Amino acid sequence: MRVRKKSWTISEYENNKHIVHNPQQHKGNWNELFGNNNPIYLEIGCGKGRFISQNAILNSDINFIGIERQSTIAATAARNVSECKNVFIIHGDVENILDFFESGEIKRLYINFCDPWPKKKWYKRRLTYRKFLEDYKTLFKDNGEIFFKTDNTILFEFSLNEFCANGWQLSNISLDLHKSDFEGNIMTEYEEKFSGKGFPIYRLEARWKK
Amino acid sequence: MRVRKKSWTISEYENNKHIVHNPQQHKGNWNELFGNNNPIYLEIGCGKGRFISQNAILNSDINFIGIERQSTIAATAARNVSECKNVFIIHGDVENILDFFESGEIKRLYINFCDPWPKKKWYKRRLTYRKFLEDYKTLFKDNGEIFFKTDNTILFEFSLNEFCANGWQLSNISLDLHKSDFEGNIMTEYEEKFSGKGFPIYRLEARWKK
Repeated sequence: MRVRKKSWTISEYENNKHIVHNPQQHKGNWNELFGNNNPIYLEIGCGKGRFISQNAILNSDINFIGIERQSTIAATAARNVSECKNVFIIHGDVENILDFFESGEIKRLYINFCDPWPKKKWYKRRLTYRKFLEDYKTLFKDNGEIFFKTDNTILFEFSLNEFCANGWQLSNISLDLHKSDFEGNIMTEYEEKFSGKGFPIYRLEARWKK
Repeated sequence: MRVRKKSWTISEYENNKHIVHNPQQHKGNWNELFGNNNPIYLEIGCGKGRFISQNAILNSDINFIGIERQSTIAATAARNVSECKNVFIIHGDVENILDFFESGEIKRLYINFCDPWPKKKWYKRRLTYRKFLEDYKTLFKDNGEIFFKTDNTILFEFSLNEFCANGWQLSNISLDLHKSDFEGNIMTEYEEKFSGKGFPIYRLEARWKK
């Protein structure tokens, strides 16, 4: 999606202290930036930051980092997390994730409504393709967990198979999250829009242990 | 479902050589009944036998056994497999499955469109509840596989979670089987009826190894 640049986002992008422009420089030292040793949870594709900001407010003993590829959206996210001391937004690409973090630096990963790349020939671009799952294992080092949500049936089916084939332990699998007993769900902007139209939301938790 | 008895089914039930009335007597000796040492695949709730008969015709090097709880339906199944030398129908209840087979005697289990017991309080009756999964492990002894199909979303979600929690390796998970690339699907009577109305069919394969 092409995003129209609004004038305020340029200043926000350049000056907001919650934006991290050179994440490689913090590799292995993120806790210094946060000023504490709390666990770090990472959201890939954090969009405008609604999910990460609400999560951060509810969990002040956790450090949160969001990655967003588009500078204008990253700037919006930074503005939306301005009140949260425990959040940083990286303007960057998930492809480079292993350049941003030392192995073992991340404890949980959120993948919310990522691009489904629905055509079969595009499966290698999906963020739950096994090449990415291997990267996430490196990120976790010894153990870690992924919380994954999507409204796309093809992507969810693909992801179930990829996680299982790649040795992850699945739990809390929902085929219709908003009709389930699951408590404490934090909605993304996208999720509110699409679930409101009656589309089911899929969710799973995947754990990996060396 | 209450089934109306047709007069021919009584004779079929009593005289058809494909019906096994006392399965306990064959425990540990099923291969003698088949007259060969081919692997045995078991279908729980085989209904009128369409799936098992087609499967048996396509796989003459496999021995098939169907279990059906209702005598009239078991009689119908027996009539429908009359031409197959590699099929027997047990009139019995899956609750007693460990009385029918020696551990290690079954290599694959089919569970097709079993009762979903959709109310939450009934979950212990579902055939993929972990108590049953433990029974199936005993049935397999060292290793075995379950091929599972349903059109019920609640049951499929429940089953995914139960299999994962119980240590089974899942593969070939389909959230819409008839729109997938899966080849060689054999439809049950029920499946043809409901998929024809546009309902998606869910499927998975679960493998267990000691």
